[in-house]
Amino acid sequence: MAVPDLVAPAIILVEPQMGENIGMAARAMANFGLTELRLVAPRDGWPSEKAVSAAAGAAKIIEGARLYPDARSAVADLHLVLATTARERGQMKRVFSPEEAMDPIRERLAVGQQVGILFGRERTGLENDEVSLADAIVTFPVHPACPSLNLAQAVLLVGYEWFKRETGSALPFGGEPLSPRAPREMLVSFFDYLEGELDGAAFYPPDKRPIMARNMRDMFLRMEMTEQDIRTIRGAVRALAEGRRVRKG
Amino acid sequence: MAVPDLVAPAIILVEPQMGENIGMAARAMANFGLTELRLVAPRDGWPSEKAVSAAAGAAKIIEGARLYPDARSAVADLHLVLATTARERGQMKRVFSPEEAMDPIRERLAVGQQVGILFGRERTGLENDEVSLADAIVTFPVHPACPSLNLAQAVLLVGYEWFKRETGSALPFGGEPLSPRAPREMLVSFFDYLEGELDGAAFYPPDKRPIMARNMRDMFLRMEMTEQDIRTIRGAVRALAEGRRVRKG
Repeated sequence: MAVPDLVAPAIILVEPQMGENIGMAARAMANFGLTELRLVAPRDGWPSEKAVSAAAGAAKIIEGARLYPDARSAVADLHLVLATTARERGQMKRVFSPEEAMDPIRERLAVGQQVGILFGRERTGLENDEVSLADAIVTFPVHPACPSLNLAQAVLLVGYEWFKRETGSALPFGGEPLSPRAPREMLVSFFDYLEGELDGAAFYPPDKRPIMARNMRDMFLRMEMTEQDIRTIRGAVRALAEGRRVRKG
Repeated sequence: MAVPDLVAPAIILVEPQMGENIGMAARAMANFGLTELRLVAPRDGWPSEKAVSAAAGAAKIIEGARLYPDARSAVADLHLVLATTARERGQMKRVFSPEEAMDPIRERLAVGQQVGILFGRERTGLENDEVSLADAIVTFPVHPACPSLNLAQAVLLVGYEWFKRETGSALPFGGEPLSPRAPREMLVSFFDYLEGELDGAAFYPPDKRPIMARNMRDMFLRMEMTEQDIRTIRGAVRALAEGRRVRKG
């Protein structure tokens, strides 16, 4: 499956503490086609060996990351800014789930505007003044007994919703049957063959034959068999019948 | 927000290698209200200190995890089994996205059946014979340039879709304005006050007053102001006007 380069929002990590988390966030971005990473004053300095190593396949995102001294400068060129927070901030902003947030994000990107999403520090999140830079809040539907997501997981969920919407949930492979669904005639001919062999093996009590045959047809119909399925099962029935005949012979 | 105990699918990790990953998977389960963890032959033995430590708030899930010698025994009591895989297996199964998979999962749980989802080893995933135990496949919509999710992230996405569907994407807090939206009369009275003060400050070129006043009314209307907003802005205008009068006085 080829996915063209996506016009996507920037991910902005504000004072991330651990290089590993930056790397894992970059990896999560790459999983879903996000490419632009902005870092506000990473605690342990930059560049970071640990970030590169945790990013695995996403080293390009780490190399291309831009550094900013504060959140204000990191969002300076953006037209729509969203802030992720896990708790109520008493700020009168709209609150979106990651899924809902894709509507305004895609709307702005579609007219050539720049969009970014702020993620806060590992333990303490964004400060209220940083949230104040944003047009709206994104928060996650989480179970109240265990509401805290780690940084890379929050980035992952935003990327996931983004990619889902952008590609219509394009899966890397589909569930097409490998052989065409069998036409009805092939099925009925298989039923005739099977029932003939079962007659020969004295399978049916004579008074029960009609209902047992119909029930077994229903079982095979529920299989939604392909042509290949029928060839396979037909071969298996033949092998059983021949084996019996050989043993009897 | 109170969320009742959910009737949820079991998460089955097949031969997970790192205790940290088991712990992070348990944490991801807890974030989304999943509680039942099954482990097939964890490589580094069980119990695992590293798993407990990585699970953070989800120690209960780790403590309650059940051990099985192989995938077959881990799914023995289940009625619907799904296998997560990142690549095509040449098996003629239905392939669901995590979102789509919630339909059959919820359908079965609703009639009291047991459901489980298999996740494979960190590097190599599930073996084909293990996938063969499942009714259908779940795969993730990921960017082809970086398609590999880590174990806990795959569990996270399944849990996220599960919780979203189960709770209607219940967010931990909403975006209700903290004060009621202002009635029109309060707005119009504010406009009158503002325009009066601007008249007093000789803000408007006389021939432009009508259009400038209407444009500024539109700006404030786009704010969708609450009663508190209007009180705040009105106070700010008054402070500016008084300050000017004091300086002039």
